[in-house]
Parts: sequence; C-alpha cells; structure tokens
Amino acid sequence: MAKNYIDFETLKYLLYDVHELESLLKEDRYKDHDKESLNLFLDSVKEFSDRELFPYVKEMDENPAHFKDGEVIVHKQVDVFMKKAGEMGLIAGPLDYEAGGLQLPIMIQTASTYIQEAANNALPGYTMLTYGSAELIIHFGNKALNETYVPKMLSGNWGGTMCLTEPQAGSSLSDLTTKATPTNDGFYKISGQKIFISGGDHQYAENIVHLVLARIEGAPAGTKGISLFVVPKNRPDGKGGLTPNDVMTVADFQKMGQRGYCTTHLGFGDTNDCQGWLVGEPHKGLNYMFLMMNGARIAVGRGAAAITMAAYQASLQYAQERAQGRKLSSDGKKNPNQEQTLIINHPDVRRMLLLQKVVAEGALSLVLLASKYFDLKESLQDPAEKEKYSLLLELIIPMVKTYPSEMGAEAVSNGVQVLGGYGFCSDFILQQYHRDIRIYSIYEGTTGIQSQDLLGRKLLMENGKALELLTAEIMESIQKAMQYDDLKKYAGKLGEKLQLAKQVIGFLVGFAKKGDYERFLSDATPFMTFFSTITQAWLWLDIATHSKQAILTGDKTHAQDFYESKIHAMRFYYKYELPKTSGQAEILMNEEVLTVAGKQEVFK
Amino acid sequence: MAKNYIDFETLKYLLYDVHELESLLKEDRYKDHDKESLNLFLDSVKEFSDRELFPYVKEMDENPAHFKDGEVIVHKQVDVFMKKAGEMGLIAGPLDYEAGGLQLPIMIQTASTYIQEAANNALPGYTMLTYGSAELIIHFGNKALNETYVPKMLSGNWGGTMCLTEPQAGSSLSDLTTKATPTNDGFYKISGQKIFISGGDHQYAENIVHLVLARIEGAPAGTKGISLFVVPKNRPDGKGGLTPNDVMTVADFQKMGQRGYCTTHLGFGDTNDCQGWLVGEPHKGLNYMFLMMNGARIAVGRGAAAITMAAYQASLQYAQERAQGRKLSSDGKKNPNQEQTLIINHPDVRRMLLLQKVVAEGALSLVLLASKYFDLKESLQDPAEKEKYSLLLELIIPMVKTYPSEMGAEAVSNGVQVLGGYGFCSDFILQQYHRDIRIYSIYEGTTGIQSQDLLGRKLLMENGKALELLTAEIMESIQKAMQYDDLKKYAGKLGEKLQLAKQVIGFLVGFAKKGDYERFLSDATPFMTFFSTITQAWLWLDIATHSKQAILTGDKTHAQDFYESKIHAMRFYYKYELPKTSGQAEILMNEEVLTVAGKQEVFK
Repeated sequence: MAKNYIDFETLKYLLYDVHELESLLKEDRYKDHDKESLNLFLDSVKEFSDRELFPYVKEMDENPAHFKDGEVIVHKQVDVFMKKAGEMGLIAGPLDYEAGGLQLPIMIQTASTYIQEAANNALPGYTMLTYGSAELIIHFGNKALNETYVPKMLSGNWGGTMCLTEPQAGSSLSDLTTKATPTNDGFYKISGQKIFISGGDHQYAENIVHLVLARIEGAPAGTKGISLFVVPKNRPDGKGGLTPNDVMTVADFQKMGQRGYCTTHLGFGDTNDCQGWLVGEPHKGLNYMFLMMNGARIAVGRGAAAITMAAYQASLQYAQERAQGRKLSSDGKKNPNQEQTLIINHPDVRRMLLLQKVVAEGALSLVLLASKYFDLKESLQDPAEKEKYSLLLELIIPMVKTYPSEMGAEAVSNGVQVLGGYGFCSDFILQQYHRDIRIYSIYEGTTGIQSQDLLGRKLLMENGKALELLTAEIMESIQKAMQYDDLKKYAGKLGEKLQLAKQVIGFLVGFAKKGDYERFLSDATPFMTFFSTITQAWLWLDIATHSKQAILTGDKTHAQDFYESKIHAMRFYYKYELPKTSGQAEILMNEEVLTVAGKQEVFK
Repeated sequence: MAKNYIDFETLKYLLYDVHELESLLKEDRYKDHDKESLNLFLDSVKEFSDRELFPYVKEMDENPAHFKDGEVIVHKQVDVFMKKAGEMGLIAGPLDYEAGGLQLPIMIQTASTYIQEAANNALPGYTMLTYGSAELIIHFGNKALNETYVPKMLSGNWGGTMCLTEPQAGSSLSDLTTKATPTNDGFYKISGQKIFISGGDHQYAENIVHLVLARIEGAPAGTKGISLFVVPKNRPDGKGGLTPNDVMTVADFQKMGQRGYCTTHLGFGDTNDCQGWLVGEPHKGLNYMFLMMNGARIAVGRGAAAITMAAYQASLQYAQERAQGRKLSSDGKKNPNQEQTLIINHPDVRRMLLLQKVVAEGALSLVLLASKYFDLKESLQDPAEKEKYSLLLELIIPMVKTYPSEMGAEAVSNGVQVLGGYGFCSDFILQQYHRDIRIYSIYEGTTGIQSQDLLGRKLLMENGKALELLTAEIMESIQKAMQYDDLKKYAGKLGEKLQLAKQVIGFLVGFAKKGDYERFLSDATPFMTFFSTITQAWLWLDIATHSKQAILTGDKTHAQDFYESKIHAMRFYYKYELPKTSGQAEILMNEEVLTVAGKQEVFK
C-alpha cells in the first residue's frame, strides 16, 4: 500500500550538511570512516529495511506477539532480523573494535536504526535492547561476564533486556523490591517480579540476558540501595551448554500498538534457583543504568521520529493519488462539471501534510543533534569541550525524548485525518502508526518525568551553565541567519522567543528559590511544550540557513527545489507552531495555583 | 475494571441548573413532562446502561463485528439492545405522539443517548441511525412509506441507515453516481455502491431500511441532482412478508476503534432487481438529508463528549487507587522511607485529570446548549424567537461536532497517560477509548469541512446576524459574572478574547472581500480551534456563575464541594486553555500564505 517509509535524501542532508557529520570524522576514533563508506553502510541498511523490515510491519501488527503455554510466540521475522542484523554489524556498530564493534559514530547508529524503525517499529527494539544491555556489561561488568555473554548478544543469537519496573513501583524506582541474596559461589540468588519487559522472552532466542535491578539484602532504602545483575534466562552449565536459570515468563502484556514487539512479565527465582551476577559494585546499579539512559532516551525520540516520518510518507502518497472535491474559484464556489482535484491541492490537506513534515524532519534533526553531542563528548580530547557537549546533551535529552513522542503523535493523527474514513480503517497503515506511537510518551520516563527533569534538574544544573551554552548556540544560529535578508525576520522572531523563555524561566525558578518546589514543578509539562517548541524553531532556522547558503553558493548536492522546500517548511513552522509559545508563556506565568493538591475536593 | 463511566450528577446539573431545561417545559409540546418524570426516565436509562451496555463495551471491542460468508456478524448484545431500546421508547423518544414518540425535548434525548454512549459507544449507533432514517421518512416520506417502515424501525425490529458516501466521491457529495431509474410501478431501480455504511447489515435485523442518495437518470450535475430513496434490504412481497431486494453486503471495514459497530460496503442492484422509493420530491435529497444534519452533528459531538467522560472516569478512578512515588518536600527532595502517595496527589496527574474534566464537562455543556437551541427553535411560537435560536444553532453546530471530537481525543490521550504503561495495555479500557474516539473528527464531515462551514458559511450568514446573536449571549453571561467579585477577572478576560475574535474575523474576512476565497478558508481549521476555545470559555464562565449563585443563595441541590469544584474547573480552563488563543490569533493574523497550492514543490 504505502510505498515509502522514509525521506532518505532528507536524512542524509541533515546528517552531512546540517549536522556536519564529516567534521566529526576527523577525530581519531573514526579515522577508518569517510562519507563514502558511511553512505554505503546506510544504503545497505536501507536495502535491508526495504527487504526484511517494511514488508512485515502490518503483518506483525495483525499477528501480535502472544503468550501461549508458558511461552511467548513472536513473528518468525524476529529470528531472521536479529541474526541478519547481528551479521551486518547493526547491533555492535558503535562499540570499540576490541569489543567487536565498528567504532561508528552514534550519529550513524542513530541514522541506521531510524531507517529500520521507520520501516518497522516492532523489530529494532529486539536488537537495540540487546545492544543496550551488552553495553552495560562491556562498561561495568568483569571479564568473565563479558566473555560469557557479550559476543553471543552482539551476533544476534542471544537477546538482552533491561529489567527495571516492578508491579508495585511503576516509575518509582526507589520502591523496587526484587531481592539479591549473596552466596559463597560468586553469584547472588535473585527473587522478584518484573513487568513491562520488552523483548523479555520468545521462542527464537537461544538465551536472553536480563540486566536486572535488585536490592542486596540489607541495602539502604531508596535508589541508593539498588544493584545491577546479569540474570540470564539460561545459565552456563559449566560443560559448555546451558541450563534453565529459574526465570519464568508469567504472562505477556497485550497492547494497543507495537504489537509485534513482545512485552512480558517475568518472575525470577520461583523455585529459589535463579542465579545472578553482580555488575560492577553493589548499590551502584541505578548509576550504571542511568549512564546508559541518555542513549535510551535518544532511542525513544528516534523511534517516535521514525514513526512520524513513516506516517507522513504514507499520507503524502495518499494525498498525491486521491482525487476528491474541487478547488474553490474566486467567487467561493465550486464547479461540479470540473474534474476532481487531488486532495493534496486542498489547503487544509497541505496544512496537515506540512505539519507532519515539520514535525517529522524537525524531530529527526533534534535526535541527530543529540547524537552529535553524544559523539563529541565521547570523542573530543579537550576536557572543556567534552564538558560543553556533555552539558548540552544533558540539557536537551528530555526534549529529545519528549518532542518526537508528543508532537509526533499529533502529526501522525494529522496523517490519519488526511485519509479521512480510510485513515481509521485497518486496511491502511495510518491507524497502526497512530496506535504504535502512543507508547513513546510513556517509555523510559513519561513526559511528566522528562519535564520535571528538564525544568527541575537540567536548567539549573551547574548554576545554569548548560542553559548558557545552549543560548550561545542558538545566538550563533541567529547571527548566521541574520546574514540573509529572507531569513532576518525569522531570526529576529527566534531572538524574541529566547528572551521570552528567559522571562518564563525566571518566573518559575522564583518558586524554587522560595522553597516551593511543588509549585515550581507543577507546570513542568507545559514548560516542556513551550521550551521544546522554541528549540525546534532554532533547528528549523538552522536548516533554512544551510539551505539558503546552498542555494546562494550553487551547491548542487541537492536540487534547488529541495532547498526551497526546507525554507518553506521553516516558514510554516514559524507561522503555525512557534506562535503557540505566546499562549504557553501566558499559561506558565499565570500566578494561580490549581494543580497542587490541597484541602479542596476538585474532582467532584 | 473501571466502575464508572459517567458523572450523572454533573449531567443533571448542566441539564436543569445551567441550561434550565424546566423553562422549556412550559412550551405546549412538553406539557406532559416535568422534572420528576424526566428524571425517572433518565434514571431508567442509566440503570439500563449499567446493566445492558457498560458490561459489554470491552467484550464488543475484543470480538469485533466482522464479515463472514456474505453476512455481517455482530455481538449478540446488538439484538438485545435494539429491542429493549425500542421497548423503552429510547428510539422514538423525541418524535410526536402521533408518530409513536414521547415528545421528549431533544435535550433529554441527548442526555439519554449520552448516558448510553458513555457506557458503550458501539451500541447506540444502531438505534440512533435507525431514528435518523425513520425521521427522514416521517418528515418527507409519503403515507405508504411511513406505514410500511416507521413502526418496525421505532420498535427496534428493523434497523435504518444513511447511505451517502461512495468510493470515488468520499466527502464530495456532488460526485455521487448511484443511479435511480424510474419504472411505471411507483418505484425506481437503484444501482450503485455505498461505503462506510454504519450498521449497514447484521444477522439480527429482520430488515434494514437504507436511506440512499442517488441520481435520477438525467438529473443535473452536482449536488442539485441528488434525490433520496428508501431502499430496504428486504422489500414487502405484497403478501405480508418480505423478499430480498437485491442489496448485497460486499464487504465490511475493519477499523481501529468502535469495533463493535459494524461498517459496511453495500452494493445495490447487482442483478437489476433493487427497488427504491422516492422520498419527497426529485433532486431535493441533499436538502432533506441536510435538514437532518444538525441532529447528526449534535450526535457526533455528543458521542465524543461521552467517550471523553468515560475515559475521564476510568483514569480518575485509577489515580485515586494507585499509589506511586512521593510528594516533594520543601527542599525538592523525596524521602524513600515515607509511604508512597496516591498518584492523584501529583500535580502533573492532577493537571491531566483536570484537563479531562474541563473538556468532558465543557463538551457536554456545549452539546446540551445545541440541543436546547434545537428545542427552542422547534417549540417556540414567536417567529423572531424561532429564527434567533435557529441562527444560534446553525452557528455553533460545526463547533458542537468538532470541539468534543478534537479536544476529546486530546483529553482521552491524557487519560491514557495517567495510567502510564497500563494505559497502553489491552487489559485497561483507556486504550480502547483512545482508539474509539479517533473516528469522531472524521464522521459526518471532517474537522476541515466543519471549519470551512463555520468560517466560510456560518459566520457570514445573514450578514453576520448569527454572530451578533452569539456575541449578545456571551455579553449577557459576562454581565452576570461581573456581579461576583471572584468572577470579575475571568469575565473581563472573556471580554478581551471576544474583542480578539472580532479582530481575527475582520482580518480573515478581508480575504473573502478581495475575492481570495482560497486564502480566506485556508486557515479555517486553526480558526475553529481558536473560536471554539473562546466559546468554551463562555460556557465555563456560565457554569461558574451558576455555581457561585447557588453557593451564595444556599441552594442545596448539590453540595458546596460540588459547586466549588465547578468554579475550580473554570479557573483551570482560564489558566490552561483560554490563553492558547493568544498564539492562535497570531497564527491566524499572520500574512504569510503557505498552504495554498502554487507552483513551488513544497513536499520535497
């Protein structure tokens, strides 16, 4: 039905032109890569996604992963995908050579996974969590753990998971109760329940390596008493084989979307024979997990951006093929004897498509920017520079996770609307994307949690240094844009909004200074909307500036049409999205306190 | 799981106190009803919905209507529901006594159907379309058609449908091609295809009476050549029985939501034996259909408002039962040794619940207001008064259809978010409501079409008279609110926004005056958002004024808590929703033209 799931040209444009990947390749770590080799890599990922991912996206939704006779049954493509992805280096890609990786920049790993997720958002989760859990072992585990588990994970033979959530605790990790009892044999006995474990079990994995947060007996209360363990589904039997490790799949979760991606409820140690191996030091589990969290949050934003793009492509194609209605003539009437027009010619349909375009491309640009900061902080040598990009990354990460998830969902809903009644019908894929994307604002810390992280932690971090750095980056973009007459107006508008943001932040921080933290954070979510809308305006101005430059310098990497469409999209963003921050600022600077619980019963 | 699906007290409060249903009962048509008898009626509907509708809402989603061996199979509760609803007078309620009705005000029919839809949004469609099609026959059909079809429809034995959409035409009714060929036997031969026919076929209906739009051979092109026909699935055989009428169910549509409500593709006259009877005069079909359209659009808004309420109730209950996390102390920290708090105590959760509350109750208030205007225009005797309420109804109807659908979907999505990961899981009903409500902004004229109707037709209607009338109504509410010190601030704000609306309308109408209709209407949808946000602010001010009055006069109909919660909700609306109109006005008064199709390729 839908032929395209991605705008590959725009992906490469953002990667190489706007975010200047090549400048990164000068760093020692990436010396074996150049634009040509990386493009060959991305082309192979695209070809792989065309062949092995996109054709199964609907089929996997219609035949969801499910729990049967104690086993989780997933689509057979999960097996094909994991092994081929392992072979192609798609799992290990960004790791060091010595860990079995290709030392790819995270920017390229992001682009690669983005392509896969746009093609089929149910499959890449299986490899990405495997990568994430292998990374934890590589960074913090001892040699034995590394040798035993990592190679099989990176080859796609064994899966990996992150086991955080428990039924009684939800997002509140300080309330975890899964127990680890030391033994004299180098392992701990693990017992407890974990829920919402993505990729937690299926019939094709010879083994699944769970990275489990648990509390060693006698550990302090709260988040400071949590340790990290490797708990395989099957443990080495000492004779080169595997033996069951008392990890039970209790049930699965049937879901509204991402139905091809299994979500499980696991029980550890039901018969007191579940062995776990400590990763790193006791009580530092949450620290380790959180060191990986930036990657995980980029991944969520990336997945949401990918679905947004796929939905945009599907609805764009529909609008370019479907004739319906007529254009208005100058007297406001329509002539029924005229031929019908393609719906893409109706302004309201164009508005919905352009909204999708600015969200899809803008979200992608944000995700790539975060990946770039990640690469810079990892690969640069100068400690001051490392710190700079580390702070910038920390500051934007809650937006990277949230903007694509929240605005992506709105964009996809516009995609459904473009198709009218067909958008609601199972024969068309838009309704699936609408269901699939809904999880992203919940994954890995809900929007509410991200928003509190942004306002309550990141803005104030190191006396506001991260915010100063970001402001400087934005000012630099404004300066550049100011050089072009066509862009001056927009650059000026962004400058105004930056001032407005300062004012809003000052107002809100006032509550923190008075010790009223609950009030300070009570509007964190509207603040997230406000601040990420401005951040996106910055990214769009930057895209437009690059495009303008390319037109003026006669750069033929892309067609003139292509560059002009980017400038048009920026203008659309500045007309239809950025002004929303005016109302948002009013909301945020309103003195009334209406959502802090008090004596009054407000839910009558 | 969820125990409640409705706030029955608020429904009655809006009905009797805010919208003053009793003043309507003075009209002759309603003389047999009083508050007590109507309450008994509503109580019986609630009891019926508790017993026969709500328990099946999830089951019907999980066992969707489907097409098998040429037949549409629906849940058995469809049969139980239709017949009991017929017996209870729930189908015929608002009709005249002589037509078999109870002469109920539309306000009561709205309240009754709202209760049913909140309980189970898949079932009431079957009776409501039956009512709508019976109404068309009653108003425009001859005696024979009335006698043959209407009684069986009102008793719930025969279903009824509206057959408008065709595959090649979608929303563009002027492109309908279904053909009606006259015969000498008093009927026409019908041939053509109709899609998206809700309730179009199922195993329990002894007969289904389709009201079909078709073109009599030689009719003018466009909407002026469309006639309306009664085309039963089975026609009378002249011997007191029925014989098949060559209406084929070709297929059904599987959908993302409302899966218990069948949607069919019908073929008429495949073997040239499909008989249809003209309703009223030739070529007036669309007029007849559109005379019913206000009712249909109230119905869509009502259904969306009902789902919004059900989702609010389900997430409110969850938030009141689920303990997770801790409240922040004054140093911004949490104490892990403290007991967990209920999530309803977290400001962000309260914000999401309050948003749901203001949308659910505000949307209901809007739907009831439209029903009241409907009743007034029908039952008042004075022609000037009739015209007044008719104009007011015409003006608000596109908002009545759109606001509950669009903002309801956003509210329901907030309900999903309140549940976190569980919101996405099939075990909980929020995900179903999220899928179900998505169709409402498409049903009966999409949001884009409603928005063009509002801006392009209704605002300018009779030289802007409807808008003047609405402005006067709003000014009256502002005056009333101004009497109370606590409400002055909000009344003043609404006054400002009314001025802003005038300014925006003036700006947009400027394009129409210059003959640039395409530009005039290109931002109709953002205008809809803007104007309905202000309209809702009016309704909330009115609710707050009534509550304030009740508190001050010591009215004990409801508890003081109840009245205060309404004032709190109004304040929430004025803090978190109304300010959005500032940004929306900026969008609408921006000179740039970015969505009108031109030479530039903007979708590169």
